[in-house]
Amino acid sequence: MDPKFIEVIKDTTPATIVTVNAAPAHVVNTWSHYMQLIDDHTLLIPSAGMHSIEADFATDNHITIAVGSYKVPGTTGTGCGFHIHGTGKFETSGAYFDQMHTKFDWIRATLVVTIDDVEQKI
Amino acid sequence: MDPKFIEVIKDTTPATIVTVNAAPAHVVNTWSHYMQLIDDHTLLIPSAGMHSIEADFATDNHITIAVGSYKVPGTTGTGCGFHIHGTGKFETSGAYFDQMHTKFDWIRATLVVTIDDVEQKI
Repeated sequence: MDPKFIEVIKDTTPATIVTVNAAPAHVVNTWSHYMQLIDDHTLLIPSAGMHSIEADFATDNHITIAVGSYKVPGTTGTGCGFHIHGTGKFETSGAYFDQMHTKFDWIRATLVVTIDDVEQKI
Repeated sequence: MDPKFIEVIKDTTPATIVTVNAAPAHVVNTWSHYMQLIDDHTLLIPSAGMHSIEADFATDNHITIAVGSYKVPGTTGTGCGFHIHGTGKFETSGAYFDQMHTKFDWIRATLVVTIDDVEQKI
């Protein structure tokens, strides 16, 4: 995985998750540093609510996640941002849920993201 | 306007703009502190690209903008975030364009957002 991306998602900035194929699209948020990158294709996100996007997943579970850090130099030198494209699944038990529940005792589920690609935007 | 909201959008964090009624929805970004709040119903955003959401506006110009700051205490004490709901219009001349172009000489347009409501999410 791009080292810049790993640096960006360590920042304490908002991450925005969008169900791009829903009508209307729903928008939910977490903090970037709450997300745990497991490998190049797996990202775990703690979920308390996020019911709107979970309902959308019944029809289409494609999501775009926007992350960025003004502290990390990007293509113009003043900040770096990425769009993560992938699909999501909410898990309320199992290894990924347990791993996240240990860190975040307030979660109801873990949003497991299968990453298709990570696109640097700036 | 809510003083917390004003504090949040001064932070150097990503702001995410989504055309929620487009199919698919498009997602673009700016930095929160680049946005200029003119009054309770008008927010100016500098635009270099943002062509995807501009194309969507031809059909429907409703947008949701997600902003947040981990530095500002919110409902759980650990960070504060808002969703701005409104409509957008790209302007390439006029007072709002000139005002933003003075601050940001690289813009091609100013995205003028008419705010319907600002919803605190956390």
